[in-house]
Amino acid sequence: MRKKGMSRRDLLGMVGLSAVSAATGAASPAFAPGTRAAAAEAPKVPWPYQPLNPEDVRKRGHQAFYEGDCMYGAFGAVITALRDKVGTPYDGFPLDMMRYGKGGLSGWGSLCGALNGASAAICLVAGEDFTKLVPELAGWYTQASLPSEASNNYAKNHQFRVKKYKSDKVLAGSVSGSTLCHASVTNWCKASGYASGSPERAERCARLAGDVAARAVELLNAHHAQQFKAAFVTPAAVQVCQACHSMGTDFKKGQFTQGRENCMLCHKPHKI
Amino acid sequence: MRKKGMSRRDLLGMVGLSAVSAATGAASPAFAPGTRAAAAEAPKVPWPYQPLNPEDVRKRGHQAFYEGDCMYGAFGAVITALRDKVGTPYDGFPLDMMRYGKGGLSGWGSLCGALNGASAAICLVAGEDFTKLVPELAGWYTQASLPSEASNNYAKNHQFRVKKYKSDKVLAGSVSGSTLCHASVTNWCKASGYASGSPERAERCARLAGDVAARAVELLNAHHAQQFKAAFVTPAAVQVCQACHSMGTDFKKGQFTQGRENCMLCHKPHKI
Repeated sequence: MRKKGMSRRDLLGMVGLSAVSAATGAASPAFAPGTRAAAAEAPKVPWPYQPLNPEDVRKRGHQAFYEGDCMYGAFGAVITALRDKVGTPYDGFPLDMMRYGKGGLSGWGSLCGALNGASAAICLVAGEDFTKLVPELAGWYTQASLPSEASNNYAKNHQFRVKKYKSDKVLAGSVSGSTLCHASVTNWCKASGYASGSPERAERCARLAGDVAARAVELLNAHHAQQFKAAFVTPAAVQVCQACHSMGTDFKKGQFTQGRENCMLCHKPHKI
Repeated sequence: MRKKGMSRRDLLGMVGLSAVSAATGAASPAFAPGTRAAAAEAPKVPWPYQPLNPEDVRKRGHQAFYEGDCMYGAFGAVITALRDKVGTPYDGFPLDMMRYGKGGLSGWGSLCGALNGASAAICLVAGEDFTKLVPELAGWYTQASLPSEASNNYAKNHQFRVKKYKSDKVLAGSVSGSTLCHASVTNWCKASGYASGSPERAERCARLAGDVAARAVELLNAHHAQQFKAAFVTPAAVQVCQACHSMGTDFKKGQFTQGRENCMLCHKPHKI
């Protein structure tokens, strides 16, 4: 299976590079320094992108949730769509490694796994422009009513079904106000009346994984067409906080923090 | 460079599989179903592991932060160490895709990027046992004083230096109490007196990336030796909350949420 006199490493590196060159039209440069020895063999970021159908990706995310939970679902939705459309190098990605993000980091209720996974896909595809696209996705996530009407509709109508979902009901939408799994799940449970361990909550997160993947693809399509424009605006109340409490070099002013979440979810406003 | 009559996809698949088989001793099975068509070509999770030196990984994480920030730093520390020790398939991983987690998801202040990256490395290496190791890493992260004495010492002594760091000072340690970048950075700034935009804060996060990667490797070494035991215990005050507010099917009892963070960081206790 391999040419005599060449090491396994030589052969893999050679074939890997030729395959990536063929897929991209040229060996694409790394978007920043630092991969050192690995740079000679790893397919470089950004990986080649072709516009995808958000509705197809929405359904892939929904179904993939049932294979590997939320982070795997959202990441896998984008990557399997690209695998089917582009092929190499997407067919070589170890999708299973993205299972860890479920339930906000293996059940900790921290960052929503769907948002984590979709953001990873964006960075793989958009390279350094993740700095524009991921914050936009995160901002959208905090303000969108999820699950969406689109994911409710296809689940209700049994379209694209390959297995039995935990619920076919139309489910209430809720706004997370935060990137956190904990806040997202709690707000949805309170809006819907379903408990966190209910089949309906699991199905809600499956649809949400599809919705977040679909939104990521809308952003990636716009980016690919050089038409991406950031739309998220930090809420006015948060802008008031950030006037003092933001990333900066003046400790006394209050610049001992950083982030873009809605401060009022955990802090009370104080007099200025 | 390639055999006539074979497609690029055929060739890459063939070489990829033979290389993985050689590295692992046999084609390792996927730890769960669902990768479908890709399963024929992607190196399966878990990837082969060999025990690593936590101190070497700590230094790699510290330095890699300066190449790609916190998530890239912690993930890259483990993966480049395995690349140098194991080789394939680690030399084919697109490390740059992990840049998105910086600053708690591209600056949002959500999940600490170092914790996100180290958890991704754990899942790639430990497969389904991430469900034991990642929560342990997260629990440790919330209670450890960081940066550690170890990372302070080598930075102070200019060991393993390949570039100028932003600070050589011994830096104060602080406990995050949370998996969140926002809380972790704020607590450290208040403990140290440095602003969030200071060179010292950036250097603190570089050392922290190394510390989290080193801790992940300690857990992976123990797991590899079949000696891993979970040590993290949920704080007693949080256990009181979780008696009602946890993942479950009884909405009226208060089971409309999920997660393992310290509730009191955002919520006030109420009468039971």
